Amino acid sequence: MTRIVCAQLAPRLGDLAGNQALTVAAVRRAADGGARVVVLPELATSGYVFETSEQARRVAVTPEHPLFARWASAARGAVVVGGFCELGADGHLYNSAAVVDRTGVLAVYRKTHLWDREKTVFTPGRDQPPVVRTQAGRIGVLICYDLEFPEMPRSMVLRGADLIAAPVNWPLVPRPAGERAPEIVLAMAAARANRVFVACCDRSGVERGVRWTEGTAVISHEGWVLGEPDADGVAAADIDLELARDKSLTAHADLLADRRPEMYSALTSATVHTGTVPHACAWSPRSR
Amino acid sequence: MTRIVCAQLAPRLGDLAGNQALTVAAVRRAADGGARVVVLPELATSGYVFETSEQARRVAVTPEHPLFARWASAARGAVVVGGFCELGADGHLYNSAAVVDRTGVLAVYRKTHLWDREKTVFTPGRDQPPVVRTQAGRIGVLICYDLEFPEMPRSMVLRGADLIAAPVNWPLVPRPAGERAPEIVLAMAAARANRVFVACCDRSGVERGVRWTEGTAVISHEGWVLGEPDADGVAAADIDLELARDKSLTAHADLLADRRPEMYSALTSATVHTGTVPHACAWSPRSR
Repeated sequence: MTRIVCAQLAPRLGDLAGNQALTVAAVRRAADGGARVVVLPELATSGYVFETSEQARRVAVTPEHPLFARWASAARGAVVVGGFCELGADGHLYNSAAVVDRTGVLAVYRKTHLWDREKTVFTPGRDQPPVVRTQAGRIGVLICYDLEFPEMPRSMVLRGADLIAAPVNWPLVPRPAGERAPEIVLAMAAARANRVFVACCDRSGVERGVRWTEGTAVISHEGWVLGEPDADGVAAADIDLELARDKSLTAHADLLADRRPEMYSALTSATVHTGTVPHACAWSPRSR
Repeated sequence: MTRIVCAQLAPRLGDLAGNQALTVAAVRRAADGGARVVVLPELATSGYVFETSEQARRVAVTPEHPLFARWASAARGAVVVGGFCELGADGHLYNSAAVVDRTGVLAVYRKTHLWDREKTVFTPGRDQPPVVRTQAGRIGVLICYDLEFPEMPRSMVLRGADLIAAPVNWPLVPRPAGERAPEIVLAMAAARANRVFVACCDRSGVERGVRWTEGTAVISHEGWVLGEPDADGVAAADIDLELARDKSLTAHADLLADRRPEMYSALTSATVHTGTVPHACAWSPRSR
């Protein structure tokens, strides 16, 4: 079994040193508790609600920054997936996540789908999200809004992910009484539709008037929530990642083998027919 | 506002005449109640749990069968989407759905993703699911297991659907206390991820030992359940289908415009990397 821990934190906007201490302490506590994978929130080193790109630039770091070695050291053999505000070698800012283990930074992912005003601060990533072979398993990385595009978890699973680790910052939105947060519904569906484990690490508290959902969850390959935050914001679950390798549902049904890729061409076309729809597949007795 | 009604029924296996009467009466009741769209279960004319393809063939019909004119007549101007066991001109059996209005059969859809033992009876469809312009709106049709492939609702929305009407037969499966049926979770996620209305019509009762979920639901473009079955199995909701045309979430976010189709090529590739994963996106300081 592999212990997955999400550490739901409240980073302070613009406080790189304080957030480094906060995240390192969270990684250490998770490792003390037996975590093999530790997921931190999106932009955990910087906070989220920047009003200008200059504010973000002040706390942006490169993957060479010593904080990643501190995560690795605190993790004592576990894998850490955490969000940070990246300064690229090209001078652009990216909303990124690092995958770190004792050997260093294994991969950096730059968020593909930027949410709302992030577009005024960050440059979208141009590379496929990584599926990283780690000692704890094959970990795919997505960030927040990426998860709301069903193409993304599906692509990660087609590329071999057993676990999707997703640093997120989910602003609280209204929902009907008794329902889970909508982002959790989407994550549950992504897990079940792909038989993949999903670990979403949200943040807590309020920042510049934005209240966060505190929706952190570790979700099974069948789409059920296994771990939710305790009073300290720690969501943990012990899972058998090998279960994600078997996509069969019955003797005759298999989630990946049953796909019909030749039917999905609309997904990779740049054309969207929301304005006018060609008269599709109209049936008449004469046409048969 | 457009009234959508799903009529959750218990068809009798192999009883074409009885199921015709049952479905016609349900359509009439829905129309009496003001329905503009009526959704019936999967294989509503035939029942589901065939042990052999011969059993299915005995109740298979072509789209010229008079039962569709009876649906149209009972609907009095509404659009009916209902599942039936189709005998193709090619002699094959299909798990199909007909879209019917007062002008006749507008479209027939043959299920793309056959579930489990359906593969021993039916031939999978080869044509894109229809998005039909009707007097009630643009209706896309999927059948049951199709909905569990996120590619399908997404494709329908890219092709202009405002409402996905889905005849289903959901065998009851275990779920944790307090959770919705997993198929509903997937349908809610499909609705929200695409800002599309979804109307799933399940069946009721037990057939050859298979208990059905009775999970019928009309789901909003925000992913929330608006209508669930009453004591008569009728799930209804009055919705403004125009809301599905606007995919914007904020001034800077739009569910379709924010897509990155150039990043989704894995979805239409026939290659699946579940066995071995290329070392993806490994990052090292030297590579930058």
